[in-house]
Amino acid sequence: MAAVALPQSRRSGIDPFYVMEVMRAAEEREVAGGEVLHLEVGQPSTPAPAGVIRAARNALENDVLGYTTAAGLEPLRRRIAEHYRSWYGAEVDPERVIVTFGASGAFVLAFLAAFDAGDRVVVPTPGYPCYRNALQALNAEVVTLPTSAETRFQPSPSLLEDLCRRTGSVDGLVLASPSNPSGTMLDRPALAAVADWCAAHGVRLVSDEIYHGITFGDPAPTALSLNDDALVVNSFSKYFSMTGWRLGWLIAPPDLVEPVRRLAQNFFISAPTLSQIAAVAAFDCHDELQANVARYAVNRSVLLDGLPAAGIDRLAPSDGAFYVYAAVDHLAADSQDLCRRWLDELGVAVTPGIDFDPAEGHRYARFSYAAATDDMAEAMRRLQQWGG
Amino acid sequence: MAAVALPQSRRSGIDPFYVMEVMRAAEEREVAGGEVLHLEVGQPSTPAPAGVIRAARNALENDVLGYTTAAGLEPLRRRIAEHYRSWYGAEVDPERVIVTFGASGAFVLAFLAAFDAGDRVVVPTPGYPCYRNALQALNAEVVTLPTSAETRFQPSPSLLEDLCRRTGSVDGLVLASPSNPSGTMLDRPALAAVADWCAAHGVRLVSDEIYHGITFGDPAPTALSLNDDALVVNSFSKYFSMTGWRLGWLIAPPDLVEPVRRLAQNFFISAPTLSQIAAVAAFDCHDELQANVARYAVNRSVLLDGLPAAGIDRLAPSDGAFYVYAAVDHLAADSQDLCRRWLDELGVAVTPGIDFDPAEGHRYARFSYAAATDDMAEAMRRLQQWGG
Repeated sequence: MAAVALPQSRRSGIDPFYVMEVMRAAEEREVAGGEVLHLEVGQPSTPAPAGVIRAARNALENDVLGYTTAAGLEPLRRRIAEHYRSWYGAEVDPERVIVTFGASGAFVLAFLAAFDAGDRVVVPTPGYPCYRNALQALNAEVVTLPTSAETRFQPSPSLLEDLCRRTGSVDGLVLASPSNPSGTMLDRPALAAVADWCAAHGVRLVSDEIYHGITFGDPAPTALSLNDDALVVNSFSKYFSMTGWRLGWLIAPPDLVEPVRRLAQNFFISAPTLSQIAAVAAFDCHDELQANVARYAVNRSVLLDGLPAAGIDRLAPSDGAFYVYAAVDHLAADSQDLCRRWLDELGVAVTPGIDFDPAEGHRYARFSYAAATDDMAEAMRRLQQWGG
Repeated sequence: MAAVALPQSRRSGIDPFYVMEVMRAAEEREVAGGEVLHLEVGQPSTPAPAGVIRAARNALENDVLGYTTAAGLEPLRRRIAEHYRSWYGAEVDPERVIVTFGASGAFVLAFLAAFDAGDRVVVPTPGYPCYRNALQALNAEVVTLPTSAETRFQPSPSLLEDLCRRTGSVDGLVLASPSNPSGTMLDRPALAAVADWCAAHGVRLVSDEIYHGITFGDPAPTALSLNDDALVVNSFSKYFSMTGWRLGWLIAPPDLVEPVRRLAQNFFISAPTLSQIAAVAAFDCHDELQANVARYAVNRSVLLDGLPAAGIDRLAPSDGAFYVYAAVDHLAADSQDLCRRWLDELGVAVTPGIDFDPAEGHRYARFSYAAATDDMAEAMRRLQQWGG
């Protein structure tokens, strides 16, 4: 019937996630009866805290669970604003909070509100691949900023300055601290320096703060108090351990609140209602959530001891999140091959760096320590005994 | 600190929803102790069916509720494919089903996969405003196709032919049957004619089928069996009465499955997990869901009798959904004023047509009959007694 073949859009030609192949291979191994130690997953292995589950159960019985307003339930927006007061000492008007479909939804809204087609947006590598893929699909021009161990895998004013000298002026910067995959964090002076550079150069800062709360030294500073034009993205998926609930938030600068709400209405209508109601209780569950962080801290020590003992000793400083990003180019030319061998020969699933850094990622692997401590220890034992 | 003022993106300058103002005014009236009969809402007043709530309660206790794969849980995709077999006699490979964040998420994925910036996409008016707003924000060119009572507020090959003659060739068409706000439906020959026209002209068809299941004569036909290149969008929000659960689906043509999955990974990661698990049970709840439809049918009769008795007798044929779209230009020059007066003087909330049709919407109002039958009857009494 089709007289003319219909093409897919050019902008849908974005990269797949290679980690999905690792996960598929790991699953196949398990289905075939093999054991897998999961150091590839990017999510907590714990459910939501008990208070959240209790609140959800209650709402299930008593609420119709229709749409909410596009910005989200007012009690939740108020609790999120309070969270900024208690964690960061920052004042945020609840009107500036937009509750979203995970951090994913927040990024779509932030990118659409801040950037037009053709705008040049800096995305550091290594970094979460969705930034560049989503920006590209939204017709922004992604300007890659390579970072390295020398700069703790984070941008700095001098790197940004140099990038602009080489490639021309830019319109935006997506920053993640702590970062996925590197786990490195910008401390307050370093973050302030980048935030100031953005302000001085008319560059819109989008700050990914989804791993806040999972840090092992000083707490992570927020860009909110450091740059008035920044869009701040956060999520209930990591520290709050509510991954599949698909809930996050965006703090917009006052002049972007209305545009972001309009975009939210048109793109999403509203975030999941049960998740919104239940998430209010998450802010009363810090004891349980801190116990998760304590387990991550133990797991992290297991890896920071165990990897060097396996000869893997060039590790990014793991300030936060639940990742160790490690150079593995002494073990294989391509970390995809290496990860495939580790899975086949050791039953240890690890993510190759290629998803996070198309240029240099083949030299790196990301070890996640979100799973059980025993699994971490056993994985280290196997890596140490591995012949290569 | 900001040396340069940062603008919002041009593409975020989309229209707000005027219905939100109606809803806000209605809420203010209620907060002030006034009564409101809600004929403005676009969602069921019922909760999810009991089987869904039971499944959700069980999953809350027993599941970690982490991410799912981007396409969604396999048992749910299989049930959705079975649904096409039992409702439409259509064979769908579950691999072609992508479970989404509501129909909202499905439209974002469909628009991104099918259309590039600058592509010309036909959007009939009156219609759901998010189509044109989202397409615009994604840099597609929206080509408005005015429809009227003479064409049952639906497009036809001759209207499309005429539009192309006047404005040039087009790349896409967004079709909704039954339509919001008109409630009108294309029967199988009419839908086939439009689907064939699209196929013959290399026009990508995106078919919004979210009101399927809520029809009052023949069941609604799906575009799936009529056009091999169509993207079909559906939702658990209307017939399945799971609005705030934010779950929908997209059936992609085979060649778009991989692009849509990649986009889903990057834009959404995965749909809400609890909703996905629970929705599997929705397909076993047809008795309860049909009782909802029976109530809509009664409500519809109340309006189809009551509105003419109030002198409002130019009504679009209400084939499906839960809307009556009525010409009200004999009562006021601008239906926004009229709706404001009805709310103030009668406590009856109705949506002015302007959201759905910027050009002609001021002559129309949308009456929703999703709420309780008693409220419908009382609203009709008040409209009949209204002096104007």
